[in-house]
Amino acid sequence: MSAYRHWRLSFDGSVATLTMDVDEQGGLVPGYELKLNSYDLGVDIELYDAVQRLRFEHPEVRTVVVTSGKEKIFCAGANIRMLAASPHEWKVNFCKFTNETRNGIEDATANSGQTYLAALNGTASGGGYELALACEHIMLVDDRSSAVSLPELPLLGVLPGTGGLTRVTDKRHVRRDLADYFATRAEGVGGKKAVAWRLVDEVVPRTSWDATVAERAKEFAARSNRPADAKGIELTPLGKIRTDGEISYRYVTARLDRERGVVEITVLGPETDAPADMAAVHAQGAEFWTLAMTRELDDLILDLRTNETELGTWTFRTKGDASRVLACDALLLDNAGDWLANEIVLYLKRTLKRLDVTSRSLIALIEPGSCFAGSLLELALAADRSFHLAGVFEEIDPDAEPAAITVGPMNLGPLPMGNDLTRLATRFHGDDDGLAAAESAQGEALRAEDAERLGLVTFAPDDIDWDEEVRIAIEERAGFSPDALTGLEANYRFTGPETLETKIFGRLTAWQNWIFTRPNASGAEGALRKYGTGQRADFDKKRV
Amino acid sequence: MSAYRHWRLSFDGSVATLTMDVDEQGGLVPGYELKLNSYDLGVDIELYDAVQRLRFEHPEVRTVVVTSGKEKIFCAGANIRMLAASPHEWKVNFCKFTNETRNGIEDATANSGQTYLAALNGTASGGGYELALACEHIMLVDDRSSAVSLPELPLLGVLPGTGGLTRVTDKRHVRRDLADYFATRAEGVGGKKAVAWRLVDEVVPRTSWDATVAERAKEFAARSNRPADAKGIELTPLGKIRTDGEISYRYVTARLDRERGVVEITVLGPETDAPADMAAVHAQGAEFWTLAMTRELDDLILDLRTNETELGTWTFRTKGDASRVLACDALLLDNAGDWLANEIVLYLKRTLKRLDVTSRSLIALIEPGSCFAGSLLELALAADRSFHLAGVFEEIDPDAEPAAITVGPMNLGPLPMGNDLTRLATRFHGDDDGLAAAESAQGEALRAEDAERLGLVTFAPDDIDWDEEVRIAIEERAGFSPDALTGLEANYRFTGPETLETKIFGRLTAWQNWIFTRPNASGAEGALRKYGTGQRADFDKKRV
Repeated sequence: MSAYRHWRLSFDGSVATLTMDVDEQGGLVPGYELKLNSYDLGVDIELYDAVQRLRFEHPEVRTVVVTSGKEKIFCAGANIRMLAASPHEWKVNFCKFTNETRNGIEDATANSGQTYLAALNGTASGGGYELALACEHIMLVDDRSSAVSLPELPLLGVLPGTGGLTRVTDKRHVRRDLADYFATRAEGVGGKKAVAWRLVDEVVPRTSWDATVAERAKEFAARSNRPADAKGIELTPLGKIRTDGEISYRYVTARLDRERGVVEITVLGPETDAPADMAAVHAQGAEFWTLAMTRELDDLILDLRTNETELGTWTFRTKGDASRVLACDALLLDNAGDWLANEIVLYLKRTLKRLDVTSRSLIALIEPGSCFAGSLLELALAADRSFHLAGVFEEIDPDAEPAAITVGPMNLGPLPMGNDLTRLATRFHGDDDGLAAAESAQGEALRAEDAERLGLVTFAPDDIDWDEEVRIAIEERAGFSPDALTGLEANYRFTGPETLETKIFGRLTAWQNWIFTRPNASGAEGALRKYGTGQRADFDKKRV
Repeated sequence: MSAYRHWRLSFDGSVATLTMDVDEQGGLVPGYELKLNSYDLGVDIELYDAVQRLRFEHPEVRTVVVTSGKEKIFCAGANIRMLAASPHEWKVNFCKFTNETRNGIEDATANSGQTYLAALNGTASGGGYELALACEHIMLVDDRSSAVSLPELPLLGVLPGTGGLTRVTDKRHVRRDLADYFATRAEGVGGKKAVAWRLVDEVVPRTSWDATVAERAKEFAARSNRPADAKGIELTPLGKIRTDGEISYRYVTARLDRERGVVEITVLGPETDAPADMAAVHAQGAEFWTLAMTRELDDLILDLRTNETELGTWTFRTKGDASRVLACDALLLDNAGDWLANEIVLYLKRTLKRLDVTSRSLIALIEPGSCFAGSLLELALAADRSFHLAGVFEEIDPDAEPAAITVGPMNLGPLPMGNDLTRLATRFHGDDDGLAAAESAQGEALRAEDAERLGLVTFAPDDIDWDEEVRIAIEERAGFSPDALTGLEANYRFTGPETLETKIFGRLTAWQNWIFTRPNASGAEGALRKYGTGQRADFDKKRV
């Protein structure tokens, strides 16, 4: 844990303290200094790692206090020079990842008995305040100078990039006109007014700061249902091999086809029968299939998103024994009271949510030998389209068992999307009969014809048509506008209700992306470029 | 009604037929021909006018059949050459207005007993199909060539611009993977498959087309609760005077301050007491205050949005007798069963919704002599901020009555926003006590101190601070990035739940705006520019 360059993690019984102390010289990319606890992707990767390890390695922790190691400043938010110098796709990917980490903090508080407490011992600006907004309780030191602020609009001509606007109104219920004023006031709001407007939960004088933070941390810890005597499991290093053409782990392999702009991802099912009980899962730790596979998939998604922006289509295949997948699922769900079982399912949920907001076309290919069942069926349900082979590949293996998919308990609730519906319910949104029919097929190994009839797969071509249909689908996708595909998918994947989370990824992020591309922000005379130069941005005044 | 250049309107008892027959040479701007029933803003302005007049002038109409006067083609959607040649702000404003008109068609069906029936006697592509999607029932001729399609993504590298993606999944419940396939297939889907996928409600052979359309129109008419013997009122020409510095009507005046980038809008309350009963309102017709004021406000909003993009802030003042405003409100709400009362309230609702999606900063100024009560209080509740003078302007009129605002029945339900909540409920989203307190103040003339305490206004400066506070708020706004303000307002104004309508204006429109600005669409090598040249667009393949 001491491996972090920008964070310190300390433990005191059930309370962990995560101290942000950014190394100014530790930027991921040359060209900027991370002053005033400002952050870049590297700082946030460490934060994500810490949040994950707290959940798996430290089940004894019930409250996580997030605070700053600097004097007078909690965090100045995302580094502006980094943002100004970054290409559009880097900015967008950076915001997506930081959003996911903050959503994960809320998930830990809501579902994992680890409550995050923001102890703002100095000013929290922009992304700094947004990090606080992801915490359950926000304390601000009351010293006549410390404040919380969202200065992006007045100073940079962009929006806060990690959910600030949505959380201010939809989570903390700050009145929209006060929120408007707040977001135009670069110096922010502190003291009693910050409490009255609900921007923070309490302000505390410096003299009683440490004692009050400790007291509050204990109060939240007392409410947790985390077991007292649990022992964590170690998140051991991933056995990752990366070449120009392939990224491989134990259960997940990705072939990078630069010619076609495709990543062919294959996920292997468990190689052995499921462990006998949760004790065995605890003993296996990070080697347990569901956890190992999820960690690999998580890492792969983040790697591809950041480093392989021109590979616009990801295909998903699976390989293995469906009954073993379902047995691992059952073991986890039958032991939902076990903290580790709970953590593994929540982690799988978060990882699948990453797919939903990934700006790549997702295509599932369901072939003989595959195991799209339960947790792995979610890959097909997350896909924009799925192809399920009817029959077998006659020339390759005429005696193979035709591919089947199986709906399992894992598809019926534990893995909701950001819209709070299961992928199955999202798929059949507004078609209650279709949903009921699909759900009642639970446990049946459904071959292509049945899967298609039930609406669980998009197309079910046979051996004769398979190659051409799949090829055309992938080639076509590569020929379309990548931007239009991103917009199409961002709309279709979130059929039905919207939540705070989908509003952040939909409404807020889409507007921010638009603002990022506009000359008023990123042009030579735009506000992002002019920041810190002493010159004002030269805006095109036209309202769009 | 015969004044339309692109539409024909005919009547047969309770059924009206609105026939699209676009004049190729009738484009609003030179440089393109409106082939194949494609449309531009001018065509849609006529459509909006027809929809409005059907509601007010033709209460006997219960079904509106929308069809085409061309052979083999219903409508090819928005004109591509017009879109390709238009500046970004024109495209966005065009899409906003066309969206509002389609939402109005749905409002007529849902709330006004005028059901829209799309009779697609030929192919409906893009915006043509989106017009059909706004109708309650879609009939497609079954002739082996006619189809419905959303070809924007494959042909133009953009998204359908008038709610197509959202309505396909969230209104018609087309499964998202089929919807994905559909939106990538330029030639679309027709025949039985279009029905099976829920893209249309029925396909009908050409031989029985006319009879079946007539039959269906009668069936929908039979379900309407429109009165049989009602007489319409005429929507007489607005007495509008427009100069470079002012737009004025009878009750609404707008001073255009180009120096400061501000429009100062003043709305006058009724000049006389409310009519004694609805019979008197029917007799007054378009002269009745609420209707006259709403029509003027509607026209002003559309004019300013289209023609005055550099005037980024609109201030709202009112002037008059609050009790007369409340009396007009009461008359309408007490007679909700009267078709005209119903129409007037629905029209006010739609006009206020326009404000919510207008990309201008809205500031309400509540001064002595104003009448922000009931329906006019909505202007202050729609604003991003409001200032309510505490006391009076001592130097101007020391004996004036201090300004008061009054919550009335009109604020408690009949005028919901696109999110289906009242502006009051949106304002207090998540603060049930605050909402209850504000609602229970109904009927009280609230002076600044009370209005501020109840959270109904943002600030309540006194005479000494007023000028400077208001001036700074307006000047600051003019100095900010117009794009960032648009994004800020689009997020804050829609606190709380999302609906089909807010998803169209939030998620879908924001992504579309982003796509419009990207070189892959609007650059010299982008798909919009390359359309029709026989050359393929040259895409930057990076996924963002």
